[in-house]
Amino acid sequence: MLQIEWAEMHMPVVARFIRERFEQEKPLKDVRVGATLHVTKETAALVRTLVAGGAEVRLAASNPLSTQDEVAAALARHDGVEVCAWRGMSEDEYFSCIRWVAKWEPNIVIDDGGDLHATLHKEYPDVAGRVWGGTEETTTGVIRLRAMEKEGVLRYPAIAVNDAKTKTMFDNRYGTGQSTIDGILRATNILLAGKIVVVAGYGWVGRGIANRARGMGARVIVTEVDPIKALEAVMDGFDVMPMMEAARRGDVFITATGNKKVIRREHIEVMKDGAILANAGHFNVEIWVPDLEEMAVSKRVIRPNVTEYRLPDGRRIYLLAEGRLVNLVAAEGHPSEVMDMSFANQALSAEYLVKNRGKLEPRLYMVPREVDEEVARLKLRALGIEIDRLTEEQKEYLSSWQL
Amino acid sequence: MLQIEWAEMHMPVVARFIRERFEQEKPLKDVRVGATLHVTKETAALVRTLVAGGAEVRLAASNPLSTQDEVAAALARHDGVEVCAWRGMSEDEYFSCIRWVAKWEPNIVIDDGGDLHATLHKEYPDVAGRVWGGTEETTTGVIRLRAMEKEGVLRYPAIAVNDAKTKTMFDNRYGTGQSTIDGILRATNILLAGKIVVVAGYGWVGRGIANRARGMGARVIVTEVDPIKALEAVMDGFDVMPMMEAARRGDVFITATGNKKVIRREHIEVMKDGAILANAGHFNVEIWVPDLEEMAVSKRVIRPNVTEYRLPDGRRIYLLAEGRLVNLVAAEGHPSEVMDMSFANQALSAEYLVKNRGKLEPRLYMVPREVDEEVARLKLRALGIEIDRLTEEQKEYLSSWQL
Amino acid sequence: MLQIEWAEMHMPVVARFIRERFEQEKPLKDVRVGATLHVTKETAALVRTLVAGGAEVRLAASNPLSTQDEVAAALARHDGVEVCAWRGMSEDEYFSCIRWVAKWEPNIVIDDGGDLHATLHKEYPDVAGRVWGGTEETTTGVIRLRAMEKEGVLRYPAIAVNDAKTKTMFDNRYGTGQSTIDGILRATNILLAGKIVVVAGYGWVGRGIANRARGMGARVIVTEVDPIKALEAVMDGFDVMPMMEAARRGDVFITATGNKKVIRREHIEVMKDGAILANAGHFNVEIWVPDLEEMAVSKRVIRPNVTEYRLPDGRRIYLLAEGRLVNLVAAEGHPSEVMDMSFANQALSAEYLVKNRGKLEPRLYMVPREVDEEVARLKLRALGIEIDRLTEEQKEYLSSWQL
Amino acid sequence: MLQIEWAEMHMPVVARFIRERFEQEKPLKDVRVGATLHVTKETAALVRTLVAGGAEVRLAASNPLSTQDEVAAALARHDGVEVCAWRGMSEDEYFSCIRWVAKWEPNIVIDDGGDLHATLHKEYPDVAGRVWGGTEETTTGVIRLRAMEKEGVLRYPAIAVNDAKTKTMFDNRYGTGQSTIDGILRATNILLAGKIVVVAGYGWVGRGIANRARGMGARVIVTEVDPIKALEAVMDGFDVMPMMEAARRGDVFITATGNKKVIRREHIEVMKDGAILANAGHFNVEIWVPDLEEMAVSKRVIRPNVTEYRLPDGRRIYLLAEGRLVNLVAAEGHPSEVMDMSFANQALSAEYLVKNRGKLEPRLYMVPREVDEEVARLKLRALGIEIDRLTEEQKEYLSSWQL
Repeated sequence: MLQIEWAEMHMPVVARFIRERFEQEKPLKDVRVGATLHVTKETAALVRTLVAGGAEVRLAASNPLSTQDEVAAALARHDGVEVCAWRGMSEDEYFSCIRWVAKWEPNIVIDDGGDLHATLHKEYPDVAGRVWGGTEETTTGVIRLRAMEKEGVLRYPAIAVNDAKTKTMFDNRYGTGQSTIDGILRATNILLAGKIVVVAGYGWVGRGIANRARGMGARVIVTEVDPIKALEAVMDGFDVMPMMEAARRGDVFITATGNKKVIRREHIEVMKDGAILANAGHFNVEIWVPDLEEMAVSKRVIRPNVTEYRLPDGRRIYLLAEGRLVNLVAAEGHPSEVMDMSFANQALSAEYLVKNRGKLEPRLYMVPREVDEEVARLKLRALGIEIDRLTEEQKEYLSSWQL
Repeated sequence: MLQIEWAEMHMPVVARFIRERFEQEKPLKDVRVGATLHVTKETAALVRTLVAGGAEVRLAASNPLSTQDEVAAALARHDGVEVCAWRGMSEDEYFSCIRWVAKWEPNIVIDDGGDLHATLHKEYPDVAGRVWGGTEETTTGVIRLRAMEKEGVLRYPAIAVNDAKTKTMFDNRYGTGQSTIDGILRATNILLAGKIVVVAGYGWVGRGIANRARGMGARVIVTEVDPIKALEAVMDGFDVMPMMEAARRGDVFITATGNKKVIRREHIEVMKDGAILANAGHFNVEIWVPDLEEMAVSKRVIRPNVTEYRLPDGRRIYLLAEGRLVNLVAAEGHPSEVMDMSFANQALSAEYLVKNRGKLEPRLYMVPREVDEEVARLKLRALGIEIDRLTEEQKEYLSSWQL
Repeated sequence: MLQIEWAEMHMPVVARFIRERFEQEKPLKDVRVGATLHVTKETAALVRTLVAGGAEVRLAASNPLSTQDEVAAALARHDGVEVCAWRGMSEDEYFSCIRWVAKWEPNIVIDDGGDLHATLHKEYPDVAGRVWGGTEETTTGVIRLRAMEKEGVLRYPAIAVNDAKTKTMFDNRYGTGQSTIDGILRATNILLAGKIVVVAGYGWVGRGIANRARGMGARVIVTEVDPIKALEAVMDGFDVMPMMEAARRGDVFITATGNKKVIRREHIEVMKDGAILANAGHFNVEIWVPDLEEMAVSKRVIRPNVTEYRLPDGRRIYLLAEGRLVNLVAAEGHPSEVMDMSFANQALSAEYLVKNRGKLEPRLYMVPREVDEEVARLKLRALGIEIDRLTEEQKEYLSSWQL
Repeated sequence: MLQIEWAEMHMPVVARFIRERFEQEKPLKDVRVGATLHVTKETAALVRTLVAGGAEVRLAASNPLSTQDEVAAALARHDGVEVCAWRGMSEDEYFSCIRWVAKWEPNIVIDDGGDLHATLHKEYPDVAGRVWGGTEETTTGVIRLRAMEKEGVLRYPAIAVNDAKTKTMFDNRYGTGQSTIDGILRATNILLAGKIVVVAGYGWVGRGIANRARGMGARVIVTEVDPIKALEAVMDGFDVMPMMEAARRGDVFITATGNKKVIRREHIEVMKDGAILANAGHFNVEIWVPDLEEMAVSKRVIRPNVTEYRLPDGRRIYLLAEGRLVNLVAAEGHPSEVMDMSFANQALSAEYLVKNRGKLEPRLYMVPREVDEEVARLKLRALGIEIDRLTEEQKEYLSSWQL
């Protein structure tokens, strides 16, 4: 399939370097890997590498709207992967697919958002108890796992792939930064130069979006609840203010907080006619759509992925992608190059969990430093970039305190 | 039609401020306006404003691939405009449409690229002799008109709308800057961060693209033939080198010179496997496709608007949009906000040509300063931005040299 | 003198390429060149190149505070140049020096600010009538010359060196951009990151300052009176608003308009405690110091070049460099590299005026295009940067309209 | 003293908010605080706040060249602080002063670079054994403390103030970023636009410098030994390559690695004539000056803080500030605003150590999160910036995994 071929060309770490080793070493031989991921061409590259490593794979969608149907078909047809995913599935269908993965009794679970982990723990506690280990792709999912760990209910070791440096920094910052802008442009084709863009949240995702929006000529306002991040945004040259004040000024609003009701009735009430709302966070709860639905006197789709809500006073508010992830729904999600790093961490973490089966506690683990650095090294190799190495004298200097 | 409605909402200068005045004053009453323009939703907004001013309009496509068919249909159906344009027309069909406009004996001609002006002068000199005046939207067209003026063959006064400050600076720089990036992302979905992007030409278009590419995290190399522009690029922090050297380094190449064969056999021969070529100049001659066709051992479309050429040594070169304008073919062309300024200059220049019928010589004219400033003022009003005014004392100070 | 040596190393165009040719060709042999310039190490490099070309030179200061006394001494002692300039001269002394140049009956006059041109025309009209030609370094001086031309009183041809592309773009934008920031940092040592910097005027100087301030992490507000420039600032991502509104928000204010009373009583009245005022325009009239003097209840110098004005309500306003050019008074003015380009235009323009003695009218002329391009070419050579050249086929393409 | 007054105006957190509380609560009553810090106006503000809290203070210089003599005098005269520091002290004198602090048997030690900690442990182990706790201001010092902790020789609890988010991010990145550029400009007055600046190290300091250099128009190359940081630099749009290759290209080199011999003979051998070398790391070992001394045939100071080394082949290399911290030696070190945050962490950490006397182990501790956030909150208050607060519903959402 051409799309997957195109993706794999831009994913040399997963689709070339790691896959070649997996094919030889078969580190996942006969391992059942149950995955909930956005079913995209990049995910295909990961799944094929897992299969190359010997795994059996069941794949469910991690979002009802993000599936690329041709990819799902190609995986099923050519790679022998069982897939439960189609674009536009209902909420019920979405969870049935997740249950279908859970009931299969996977050894390793790979999740994106935490719905698979949550379903396993809530509905299939026995299965969860037999899982060797899991990984989690997103901030949101990691927050949920951390809560589970804290409550003492987590039943298997889980690796926070999301927190790998080569994942968070690159995926969240550079990937979501670009693809969110891309999604907004595809949906609206507006000119960003001169617009006021309000970015809610200054974590890695928010930082990436704020920088890219500025890079396209927008004036950017950041909102935050964390004083340290707020101060960092100020020092990076952004305006920082409460959402209540930003709401009056913004032309485009982008949420990236991992929290709910970040944009709600009180904010919408003071927005300008024509304001555009987009969400870059995992769940469609950051922009509180029920408020918009209640407030509106009429509603229509004016362009694909652009819904116009007309308010009683005549103002029009435009919601992109129904408040779901704008980069996935209105564009193609992360560029393949970014998923290459993220999924390299997934593949190597899955291998790590298999190798260390039984040795890990039911806790949330960081991606091992050596995995993280290996991913960076492979990526630099793919880019043809060389870097310096410490001399022996320098190594000694760094490790000595008696100068 | 919803698309036109969306465009007009983002074109307050043309579709609100000027149109309202035109409706009252009818400055183009019974004037035959023959136009060759990209048939897009924004062009629809301009045409409807011309019609509101009393004009009869015939519209032909200015590019065989850029027509949005629904827009053409909507204009014909709802606005009584005669349109000769469809997506994917042949070179022959393209020129027949231009001739169909010329033969109609327009009073005012609006052109984008200069094919209408050239056709009138070469094939319909008598008609050209009766034209009241013309306007030209692009750098390329202005270069051609200037050559005609220099050779003494120009038969009617022509206004270089392209050179209006509120056109060149905004359309070429901000519009093409953003939409070229947008076109490349839609066509390829590659990650720009970390890529080496080579921009050929540091005119307004090249500047815009170079800045936006940097804004997305790319490392940017500029090539130029003009020493002053080259030096400016250096001072703006870009690497500058001959194309022969840049060809070895680039991941993505974007031409924006207005010249031909800017990327040719000798450059392609040294490019990296996977290099991506895109054109942002008016004609599809900047990347010399015949060289690529000759060099390749095979060719296939790997994604919409992405053609893969495989060279004898196995390297793959990706040509976007067949070397045509990538922002028009692979994306939606300029954002409406930009076309608003450009087309405001068109509408007010057409009005100016009608008002000054018979008073102008067959020369190339600048957009009158008052038109230019009026466009800026209307745009600022639309943005809700106020600026300072000179006090009487300050005006006096500026006009006095005896301090 | 080491300072001049350092400057000349960073001025290869004036101090190496042009000087070597002047030494051989002596194009200024026995020409009396009267100059009013900031007496700095870079001016020394220019003067020595003029002398190398055969000229006799009289040099007066173009600003009472900008003279580097050691440079004045070195020029007089080692290069046989007559100099009338010392740091801290009075207004009277300043004008006596200008008169001392005028009375000498120079053949060529080089001015910076227009005081020499004005004095010649007002007080020495006969001498002015015999001058072969003049040049002008600054925007302010060019405005004054243009007013003189318009009133029909200009008595000799004058070249607007300020308007050369290789001068305006580089000197005004990159030079003043950097050195204004430098002057503010030396005077105050404040952190720019996170501060709100208000830049009055978005001409080349204002653009340069706004970009550099943003590059240091500041949030930048631009004020303008020209709608086109205001719109450009918006599209470049800056906030634009009237000074009355910006005055309430700014931490640092920088004037760069060429106009007077840009910051005045009404603005100072609403500023924050601790606001810092700096001027980057030629004359110390942009920040209206008399208003500040009248409003203050006390005044003291808190650091070199920082004067604190305490207002009746306790707020403290800090005026840098007494409202004079902050980059010259608090720092070292333009970096040598920039003056290299500006003074290359001066040297070549002086040569041009001598060569074309008697052939030019008493008008304001642009720097000839070939001079401008020659300066750029020499600078690129100095930087070791090569650029592309048009092929014959490309040249033909560009000059042809019949494609 | 006016300088200290100026600093304190820009240090509202230390000199107003914390000092006022310390004056009332006297948390450091009768505590002997021995400090080794750069003796600058900002340090004066910290010391006066410690004194306000009840402490007795002995202060030694942390760098032989960084003392502002008037500040030392003012502290001694007006604030009853014992100071051992003067600009230009010898290496011997420098260490005598450190011993003078150690011998005084301080309860709390505040260090900048680790020389005080090292001296205490090596020469005064008994005193070290009685110290309640220490803090450390720099990366270098923290590396040394970590080595001591690892070897099991650390004798008292130490807080890595350097690693506080409100210290590292702001001080290292924004502070050193700006002040390093400032130091280079004051020393050289070169134009950064168009120059190639090589930044060695992409830690917080390197990041800050790279961004500011780019913000001034330079083309920036980064060198690194860490693959993750190297990749981050690439993704941020910088060129990354080994120093051996960068050495051939750079105009200005800035070291910020915390390591030694980062620029050495092999690099200097291939540098361009006129190359400028500056160090932003704590110790003067990053640029290996002995190599330069050996290679040079002559050496002279061409401007204050600029030493010219002439190599046998005629090339001239310019070393700034003798390879010492360029921002401290050639400029005024960090802006007061930055030191405000850093020293707020120092003051609150000292208070914390006193409060928790006897409860902490002889380990290296992070700055407590609540101290870090308090500093950020106080700084935002000083800037007049408000931020959002989580609603109860949002707090609950964040802490729940059962959505």
